[in-house]
Formats: sequence, structure tokens, C-alpha cells
Amino acid sequence: MLKNAIRITVKAQLQNAFQSMMPMTVYTESHLADALRDTLQRPGSMVRAELAYRIGSAYNVAENRSVELAIALEYFHTASLLFDDLPCMDDAKMRRGVRCAHVVYGESTAILAALGLINRAYGLVWKSAAGLDAAIQMRAHEYLERQLGVAGLLNGQSQDLHYSRFKPSSTTPQSVAMGKTVSLIRLPLLLPAILGGASENELRQLERLAIFWGLSYQSLDDLKDVLYSEGGAGKTSARDAQLNRPNLALSIGIDEAFDRIQRLMRLADRAVTRLKRENFGLAFLEQVHLSFDQELATLENARLAYAS
Amino acid sequence: MLKNAIRITVKAQLQNAFQSMMPMTVYTESHLADALRDTLQRPGSMVRAELAYRIGSAYNVAENRSVELAIALEYFHTASLLFDDLPCMDDAKMRRGVRCAHVVYGESTAILAALGLINRAYGLVWKSAAGLDAAIQMRAHEYLERQLGVAGLLNGQSQDLHYSRFKPSSTTPQSVAMGKTVSLIRLPLLLPAILGGASENELRQLERLAIFWGLSYQSLDDLKDVLYSEGGAGKTSARDAQLNRPNLALSIGIDEAFDRIQRLMRLADRAVTRLKRENFGLAFLEQVHLSFDQELATLENARLAYAS
Repeated sequence: MLKNAIRITVKAQLQNAFQSMMPMTVYTESHLADALRDTLQRPGSMVRAELAYRIGSAYNVAENRSVELAIALEYFHTASLLFDDLPCMDDAKMRRGVRCAHVVYGESTAILAALGLINRAYGLVWKSAAGLDAAIQMRAHEYLERQLGVAGLLNGQSQDLHYSRFKPSSTTPQSVAMGKTVSLIRLPLLLPAILGGASENELRQLERLAIFWGLSYQSLDDLKDVLYSEGGAGKTSARDAQLNRPNLALSIGIDEAFDRIQRLMRLADRAVTRLKRENFGLAFLEQVHLSFDQELATLENARLAYAS
Repeated sequence: MLKNAIRITVKAQLQNAFQSMMPMTVYTESHLADALRDTLQRPGSMVRAELAYRIGSAYNVAENRSVELAIALEYFHTASLLFDDLPCMDDAKMRRGVRCAHVVYGESTAILAALGLINRAYGLVWKSAAGLDAAIQMRAHEYLERQLGVAGLLNGQSQDLHYSRFKPSSTTPQSVAMGKTVSLIRLPLLLPAILGGASENELRQLERLAIFWGLSYQSLDDLKDVLYSEGGAGKTSARDAQLNRPNLALSIGIDEAFDRIQRLMRLADRAVTRLKRENFGLAFLEQVHLSFDQELATLENARLAYAS
């Protein structure tokens, strides 16, 4: 009961910070300011921010540093959604229950708003690490650059967009997911631990967990795309198939995809157990793991409906 | 003679660094890699990089830091051009003598390439300042964030795009230029001086010089848009007028625009003289100033042709 209350407080605090940490003034051009305010009013699940904040707490990172880092990662994520939704990318119309920023404010303003979030995010990461040990700072900044750059997220996005031209053997949905999805799960798991001086062994376990969770998350998403669109209303066909995007369930089949997620979840479970042994403050990871398990169970029901 | 040879060496060194400091591997998605390589093969004038490098040298900033900073600023600038050229922004087809990246590789790949340059640029700025005095680092990073973010460059871009809806009194071409053009001249003038521990007085003079040069540069560009398009072939009308973009010559007239540039150039000249007195290493700024003067003289000739 108290635990839940504390959890709600952390979430509310982070949602508040999400809205307030983007500095705008009366001089901010009105379309840009409106697009940013609109975007910041819908923080989404804030799952990355909460994860980063809690990892930070487990490693005794100062409160303000944990919040700065958490919000920075959420800004990077939000910017990536603004770009993803553009007509030249996924051409989405709706996001978080309302029309996309580029639909309401135009593409150019949506792009400038995304760049504003990215600029602020780099500033916040810098602040979160300022004054710490030089080796820790270097490791954090190099990790950030690698995960977000052409070796990480941007590579995954580009593979995703050009998937149809690959031979299935050279680029599998799994390898696309490594860049596209795993990068943005690695950052909230690893960066606060790096700032908090986690041991090499702990960082290695967190890396493994990021990969297992990231691939599970992407595979669950792929399954939802197939099961809910075809099995549900039965009218719209799977979006990934339409757009020729990588989808594990489409490429290896629904049953094999379920098996693979279950294997990944067992590996993730083991990593969580080890991490909890190293640092009991990381016990909350079990709750996060449980929420994946619940989603998998929900999907099992959808699979039964799909099969029948 | 020797001076020119050294100058060419610096430029060649920077052009080489411009191409080599963007890390790409065999794993980089091929469209993204091609777009980046193509972009990096045409470094443009590298005027910002050279300026940053020379300011760094004048303040005894370590060679590798000066180069990292110089290339970072050039990457930010190049990314801003990739975005500017998009159909939803200026809808340009040609850049640096070849077809724009979005024309050749598609909009999505051009956007990912630009984001790759931005990510690398933040990483390079971080490296260039790493290990320096904490107060200097903070000042440098806050300055960078401010000039590039929604209080600086992005605000200018947004004002530029929405210019037609402003009342001329509330946003003049000059105030748009402050965000759009001056921000990217402030960075090469101020950032290396900040890293090199320049005095408050020197930083103030460099700020003034950035504003005088930045506004001159934008006004020269505005004049070219009017004089060369209408006065020259006489067929295409001024692009700014077509796009309803801010243009000093269109808003206050050609003669008044010339007068204003001359006033700005006198003020810039005075700032250069003072800076040279403080730090003789900054004497090279006179050469940069001279190149503005030469452009102004060339435009004077175009003005005569235009009037006749």
C-alpha cells in the first residue's frame, strides 16, 4: 500500500519534471512552443524515466542527477517518436490518443520540436554527469553517443526503413531490434548504473538484461501487430506486413515467436536474480519483469482467440 | 607565401577531419552510410571550423580539442542544412553543386544522417571540453545548449518558417537573423575562447563581433537574393519574396540595407581592433573581416548593375 503510494509519487514527480524541464519563454516562437507544450502534456508511460530513476536510486546517484538523466532519456525517446511518425517514416496520424504533432503543427514544426527535445536532452545528460569522476563521465558520454548514434538507434531505424531490400538472411528482425529497441532500453538500465559506479559484473548483467528485455519487448510488439490486427476486428491487415517492416512473428511464425519470447524471459529472469543478489536496491526489477510476463499472458489469450 | 601555405594546411587538415571523424563500420546500414559519406565528401567552405580552430589556437587550446570542437560545429551546421533543404522546410533540390541528400536518398535517410551528425557533434564537443576546469565545462555546455536550442537556432528557424504570419513590427528580419544566423557564428567565436579561459572582456567583445558579423552576413545574403535574382537573368524573382521569408532588403529597401551593413561592419571592425589589442593571436580576424568587405564591394557592383 505504502509502496504503491511511493511509486505513484515518483511517477508524478517525473511527469512533472517532464513538463517543466524544457525551458520556454515568451520569446519562443508560438508554433514551436505550442507543439512542445502539447507534446509535453502527454508524457506516455514514462517507463524509461522511471527505470532510469530507480536504477539511479539503487546506486545512490544524487536525486537531481537521477531526475535529469531520467527526463533526458524520455526526451530522446519522445523525439524519436516525433520523427518516427513523420510521413516519410511511419506516416502515423495518431499518437497517445491525439493527432500527431506533424498533423496539427506541420512537419517542419514537429521536426524543430524534436530537435529542441534532443538538444535539451544532451544538456540534461551533461548536467547529470557534471563533476563526477572523469573516467565515469567519459564512459557515460561514450555509451550515450554509441547507443543513440549511427552505431545504435539510428542504424536500427535505417535498417527498419530499408528492410524490404535486405535478404532475410543478412538482416533479421532480431538484428534490427538490437539497434532500434534495445538501444533505448540499454540507456535507462546502464547509464544511471555507470554514473553510480556499478561494478563491471553488474554492468555486464544489466547489458544482458537490456538485450533480453529489449528483444522480448520488440517481439511482443510484433506479435501484437499480427494477433490484434488480423485476429481482432479482422479487417485491417498487419501494419508491418503492409509497410514491409521487420516482424518476428511474420518471419518465423507465431508459435516460434512465442517460444523465443519465453526463452528470452527465462534468461532475463536469471539476470534479474543475479542483479538482486549484487544490489538489493535492484529488487524492483522483478516488478518490471512481472509486467512483461503479464503482457505475455494477455497475448497467450489473444493467440487462442486467433487460432480458434 | 608561407602564411598561405600554413592556411591551406589547416584547411586541408580540417577537411580531412570532417570526413574521418564520423565513425562508420561495415555494420552501418548502407543507405545511411552512403548518405553520410556523400555529405562528408562536400565539406563546403568550412569557415566555421576554421574560425573555431584559429580562435582555439589564439587561446592555446590543445590542438586535438580545437579540432574536435571545429568539426563538431561543422557537423551541427551540416545537419542544419540537411534539415533546411527538406521539402517541408525550404524544399531545395541542389546543395553544394549536387542534388540534395533527401532527393538522392529519400527524406527519411536524410533525416537519419542529420541526426547522426548531431549525435556525433555533441559527443565531440563533450570530448573537446572533457577534463577541463568544471566552471569552464559548465559554461561551454550551457552556451552550446542555449545557442542551438529553442532559445537560439531552433527559435530562429521557426520564426523564419512562420514569418508570413507575423506582424512586421513584432518580428523583423533582424530578430529572425539573431536566432538563425548569429547563433551559428557565436559558437565558433565563443566556444573555443571559453575553453581557452578568455577574459570576460574578451568574451564580451567576441559576442559583439558575432552579432555584427552575423547580422552583416545575413543582410549580405538577403541583398544577394534580391540583386542577383532580379538584376541578373531577370527571370526568376527573389526566392525570399516567393517563400515569404524575412529579407532585410525587401523590408527596408536596398539602399537602407547597404547603409545598415556598412554601420555593422564599422562596429565589427572596432571589435576586431580591441580583440587584437587583448590577444595578438586574434589578428587573423582582420582577414576574415576583409573577406566580408570584399563581398560587400562585389555587391556594390551588382547594385550599380541593378540600378542601371
